[in-house]
Amino acid sequence: MSSNDKPALYTSLSPALLHLYDVSSSIVVIIDVLRATSTIATALHNGAKSIIPVDSVAECIRIGKQIDAITAGERDGQVAEGLQYGNSPFEYPNDFIGEKTLVLTTTNGTKLLHMALDKGAREIVTGSFPNLSAVCDFLIKSKQNVILGCAAWKDRVNIEDTLFAGAVIEKVKEHFNINCDSSQIANSLYNEAKNDLYEFMKKKNASHYHRLSNFGLEKDIRYCLTPDGANVLPIYRDGKLSVGEW
Amino acid sequence: MSSNDKPALYTSLSPALLHLYDVSSSIVVIIDVLRATSTIATALHNGAKSIIPVDSVAECIRIGKQIDAITAGERDGQVAEGLQYGNSPFEYPNDFIGEKTLVLTTTNGTKLLHMALDKGAREIVTGSFPNLSAVCDFLIKSKQNVILGCAAWKDRVNIEDTLFAGAVIEKVKEHFNINCDSSQIANSLYNEAKNDLYEFMKKKNASHYHRLSNFGLEKDIRYCLTPDGANVLPIYRDGKLSVGEW
Repeated sequence: MSSNDKPALYTSLSPALLHLYDVSSSIVVIIDVLRATSTIATALHNGAKSIIPVDSVAECIRIGKQIDAITAGERDGQVAEGLQYGNSPFEYPNDFIGEKTLVLTTTNGTKLLHMALDKGAREIVTGSFPNLSAVCDFLIKSKQNVILGCAAWKDRVNIEDTLFAGAVIEKVKEHFNINCDSSQIANSLYNEAKNDLYEFMKKKNASHYHRLSNFGLEKDIRYCLTPDGANVLPIYRDGKLSVGEW
Repeated sequence: MSSNDKPALYTSLSPALLHLYDVSSSIVVIIDVLRATSTIATALHNGAKSIIPVDSVAECIRIGKQIDAITAGERDGQVAEGLQYGNSPFEYPNDFIGEKTLVLTTTNGTKLLHMALDKGAREIVTGSFPNLSAVCDFLIKSKQNVILGCAAWKDRVNIEDTLFAGAVIEKVKEHFNINCDSSQIANSLYNEAKNDLYEFMKKKNASHYHRLSNFGLEKDIRYCLTPDGANVLPIYRDGKLSVGEW
């Protein structure tokens, strides 16, 4: 079978499942659609110099002081105490974030990134609908094994990250050997939802949709489900995410 | 909302996610479609007195000798060394299994059952397409919180157990408060697949379909995906599964 010549693609639907996959031989795509990885793509697209993803609020404050950077992050969907900004992509237009460094901590996304780092990932990039095409182009050109890592919600599988994994698979599947039921499930879900991702999220009563829409964040949700509004590739190197050249 | 009066239903897509749910307040449905829970329903439907699910092959052999029972089980889809029988429902017709006790160990299903037991599950039953209706009727009448526990494959999410969870949800959803993305994903997948579960499994290149069809087990797969062929409710009490009265 010629499929054996292709690199492998797996989907990890939750950080609690990441250990099942061979992280050290793979590019890991960190997926936290609502909203960490959407915000990362947007801030970089709008000219941020780099983004330093950190595990904890304390670390975020400490590094922010050290290097005179903007500190931002959320816990449970709201701005974390002690930080200056939140996790909404609309907080980071060019005239605010251009040429600046952002130190960011979020409930799920930055945690998963550090897990992938600790497990020796070959390469780490972040993915979200706003940079869907950039991620897919990179994965196809790299010709390496891939793990689509969903950040989920406190380890519980969520619809929006699964949808993004499914969207990536839809665009790259001819180039990979996909022997992975989680990937098939994600791709099926995306194909059911693709005509209107926002309505699908609402209809399915997605837990995160409800959490955020209770905070009045429908506009964020619509943006975070729209492809290619901030089409850059955030690559993690030397402790920070910046726009990758490839 | 009247939905708050209803009990809650969650789906755990892998044993590695079971700890995220409140097992001790719930009925846990152990789901291992190919083939442990399908075989359990079938053996009990065909008159087996009870089934003792055990963790290890050594324990299976030891108990089998102690109580003069039939020992059966598989590792990686084939009859485990030292055991008499395998994990195919067709090995257990009435004229063989009637009035007998079966001691059973399998790669994923019996492991998950013991996890649920260790976490103090309120009640444990096993579910599979051959006993789909019995499980759903029981869950509706019980009016208790439910966790649909997929046995998966060595902790990796699989299509067939997810499909069964989705089938249960389709039949019981009016009776439960379902604020759980995994349940929505499972239900969507089932609705996509329901017109021909067997073809869906083949088309999606499901990893377990391939593993078993390589062993010539298409007949098992078709049976294990067909509803209500052995419509009894296996309930776990005092160390064994037997047909529940409810």
